[in-house]
Amino acid sequence: MGKGDLTRQAILEHALGLATRVGLGGVTIGQLASDLGLSKSGLFAHFQSKEALQLQVLELASSRFVDTVLRPSLAAPRGEPRLREMMERWREWSHLHALPGGCLFVAAAIELDDQPGPTRDRLVALQKDWLDALAHGVRVAIDEGHFRADLDPMQFAHDLNAIALGYHWSSRLMRDPQAHQRAVNAFEALVAAARKTPPVRAARTRARAS
Amino acid sequence: MGKGDLTRQAILEHALGLATRVGLGGVTIGQLASDLGLSKSGLFAHFQSKEALQLQVLELASSRFVDTVLRPSLAAPRGEPRLREMMERWREWSHLHALPGGCLFVAAAIELDDQPGPTRDRLVALQKDWLDALAHGVRVAIDEGHFRADLDPMQFAHDLNAIALGYHWSSRLMRDPQAHQRAVNAFEALVAAARKTPPVRAARTRARAS
Repeated sequence: MGKGDLTRQAILEHALGLATRVGLGGVTIGQLASDLGLSKSGLFAHFQSKEALQLQVLELASSRFVDTVLRPSLAAPRGEPRLREMMERWREWSHLHALPGGCLFVAAAIELDDQPGPTRDRLVALQKDWLDALAHGVRVAIDEGHFRADLDPMQFAHDLNAIALGYHWSSRLMRDPQAHQRAVNAFEALVAAARKTPPVRAARTRARAS
Repeated sequence: MGKGDLTRQAILEHALGLATRVGLGGVTIGQLASDLGLSKSGLFAHFQSKEALQLQVLELASSRFVDTVLRPSLAAPRGEPRLREMMERWREWSHLHALPGGCLFVAAAIELDDQPGPTRDRLVALQKDWLDALAHGVRVAIDEGHFRADLDPMQFAHDLNAIALGYHWSSRLMRDPQAHQRAVNAFEALVAAARKTPPVRAARTRARAS
């Protein structure tokens, strides 16, 4: 990395932290110049426009998310343990020191949902990747025999994402001391339902066996 | 209502719609003056400060929420049907014409979670009321014998709230045509688990019966 790259990287790190607190809309060349004591013209040379800057903040968040949540989860055993690891790492991610306002994707989802444009499009693509990663984890858990074969992986992925959104809300807005336990309970109920043979089928199996 | 009250009401209606799109932070005296062709001094006479204005927007949203979601749900039969009505009315609420950017509470939760002060405090109190209303609905469903007696009403309320947050995310950010179906599936799975005798107990009951 050259000196210019290091500077650019340090600016983006700061911009990412700022974005989690005040939103991507608050990440402006002017605000960064003021926070970091840099010249606006120097910042323009690095980022060209506010939109380019916001896109690069999203890319940095995405790269951090892969390093913090997705890649390390692969070290857990395939199937249910790996899904469990993904969700626990997501929780830790939402409390990272580098993200003082929580998960950037959760915040940006609300901020950008009414703002058409390249930043919104990129966010949607990244969030599709996240859902797909969860759904893939569910498929692996089915292949490993941990979950029932008739489980809908994309529904399960949506349910996990909703638990994550609920956790973010309970922990950050409500400051509920039970936020973690609520999320764990919801996760365990979901996993238990994915694991077990549905009761009707269980009753039928028993009827045939007797 | 006097003429002054009518004007104040019309201003607040506009401010509410604006807040769902750009956040409560974007609801300023200056923006309202520009949108509505009113003088800033006239607006100051109505609202005194930006904070007072934002608090009144929250109160208007809360009063609309009671009228649109909570009160009409009471017309549904007690227990599970009433909870079902609350969730369906919540979904309709998030698409109201008066709320072009969706549910103000969902958006404000993200916007205000890092902003201590009276507006955040009021939002938290309103969101506690919402969770309590859901938990109360669950307790009634237990009393009516629709749900198991050992169900945790507050956990169930959290799970319902997470489904609502997930629906808001899927429908507004992802524009997923299946957003409604995903939320319905999640709700039905939750209700089914709340209703049925847990499988272990069912097996034991059967064993004793034979």
